Amino acid sequence: MKYLGIDLGGTNIAAGIVDEKGNILIKGNTPTQPLRPIEEIVKDIAALCKKLISASDISEDEIKEIGMGCPGTVDAEKGIVVYSNNIPIKHIPIRKMLEEYFPYKNIKLENDANAAAYGEYIINGDNADSFVFITLGTGVGGGVILNKKIYRGFNGVGCEPGHITLISGGEQCTCGKQGCWEAYASATALINQTKTAIEKNADTAMREWVEKNGKVSGRTAFECAKEGDETALGVVRNYIRYVADGIVSIVNVFQPESIVIGGGISKEGEYLISPIREYVIRNEFNKYMKKTKISAATLFNDAGIIGAALC
Amino acid sequence: MKYLGIDLGGTNIAAGIVDEKGNILIKGNTPTQPLRPIEEIVKDIAALCKKLISASDISEDEIKEIGMGCPGTVDAEKGIVVYSNNIPIKHIPIRKMLEEYFPYKNIKLENDANAAAYGEYIINGDNADSFVFITLGTGVGGGVILNKKIYRGFNGVGCEPGHITLISGGEQCTCGKQGCWEAYASATALINQTKTAIEKNADTAMREWVEKNGKVSGRTAFECAKEGDETALGVVRNYIRYVADGIVSIVNVFQPESIVIGGGISKEGEYLISPIREYVIRNEFNKYMKKTKISAATLFNDAGIIGAALC
Repeated sequence: MKYLGIDLGGTNIAAGIVDEKGNILIKGNTPTQPLRPIEEIVKDIAALCKKLISASDISEDEIKEIGMGCPGTVDAEKGIVVYSNNIPIKHIPIRKMLEEYFPYKNIKLENDANAAAYGEYIINGDNADSFVFITLGTGVGGGVILNKKIYRGFNGVGCEPGHITLISGGEQCTCGKQGCWEAYASATALINQTKTAIEKNADTAMREWVEKNGKVSGRTAFECAKEGDETALGVVRNYIRYVADGIVSIVNVFQPESIVIGGGISKEGEYLISPIREYVIRNEFNKYMKKTKISAATLFNDAGIIGAALC
Repeated sequence: MKYLGIDLGGTNIAAGIVDEKGNILIKGNTPTQPLRPIEEIVKDIAALCKKLISASDISEDEIKEIGMGCPGTVDAEKGIVVYSNNIPIKHIPIRKMLEEYFPYKNIKLENDANAAAYGEYIINGDNADSFVFITLGTGVGGGVILNKKIYRGFNGVGCEPGHITLISGGEQCTCGKQGCWEAYASATALINQTKTAIEKNADTAMREWVEKNGKVSGRTAFECAKEGDETALGVVRNYIRYVADGIVSIVNVFQPESIVIGGGISKEGEYLISPIREYVIRNEFNKYMKKTKISAATLFNDAGIIGAALC
């Protein structure tokens, strides 16, 4: 049997046909253009899916289920996007809208971070009983897999790890609260931390980097730190501590068997993960028990497709 | 059928016989004297249990199971206290030691906070699928009940809510990390915050309170705040914000149906809980979904007995 997974993002819609092991057989994408009516977006999603099916040697009958990851607050049970920021919609019955294009299919809706978490779990989760996925991207997102299922809590939305407190009363977060982990550990936060350091330090090599590359990105501080720039090293050390301190909270709360860290910043690989691992071992509460495995994601954008298809 | 629950604390050993609904039929206690050999402590535990059985009209055969909550890191599966601070022991096979006194009984070992969480869940948990218990005592402890079972994580120890980060790089916590929730929201922390405020404010009514009551306690600031003392009000507002900010993290992570707050400080009841509830509604991430019920514990010391007996 085959599964169709859709990852609805604020910029891009990605979709793919996936086998039961999580291998992507064919995939494609189309721009979201988030400000147009949701009916048009859903029409394009359906068209993308139909196009993938015809381009493959798989018949529509072979597709067992269709799953879609959506940004924002998703009511998986009711198949509704309750609220989303990236695509400005509220209380939209997206499952029902998709059913008009695929009337004989079981269609599942899921929060995009939960779907990506499930995708990483399927491929990199070692079949663990407790697994946490954290993305360091525009925000800090993620999902929790317990007993091989997405943990959703009583209201169906699941874990929002980016909105645990990191510094009570600290930086304003986009969610309205102050001091969220996301406000310190997202790529957006890292970019702001990098900009502040560049402004304060005339002699940092990051200034040259920015001139060459056009703008400050999540890579600026990491790349200059690797070249030995002291200011960049300071930014990276601080940033990694913010990330690691939140990971300690996650470890102390879930004692998960495995944590996978994804999102753009996770492309730094061991340069990022290795100091996080050391920090967690030094700072977690249960120092005398088995250690949580911490690793970098490998799937990136495919995680959402695989997870939405199979969750 | 009846169950025997034991709550092994650093100061006191409490035990009781409990029915399957969580009613305590008889209970008693004896001092721990934590610095003597563990064999003597276990001997006293067994003697207390035997005494309770003979004082009741229940025969030993009617006792279906014996459970014990222990402080520190407990390996429930192996029946071992891996590490404890309050009773200075390491790698002690307490289950095996208790089995010598009750050779025909199923004996369970559990972390004391997990056991108390389960006790509160049985009595005050409304049969919820997701339930979190938080104690504001000497430390900040607690436990999580998911799908009607204690959540233990992959290493068997369960949730340590007191050691999520509240202020990264902040106050030193007894666990070795800086900035844990416990370092701000425990009764110990409240006492320190109260002392600092008294030192700084010569005109606070708390000075008189301390003279009358002999020392600063977790009640000092609350009682003087209720009388309108501005300094005490400041301490209480700050403290409640620390507590509430951690509760928001717990809500955003677990989206639990119900949170019960226990420990000495929870005796303040609605004076404490009501502002926490308001803060959580204002600051939680999923503002458009069903709300977590937040209430004060009712069982206090009995929670550990009931939970250990029935978990």
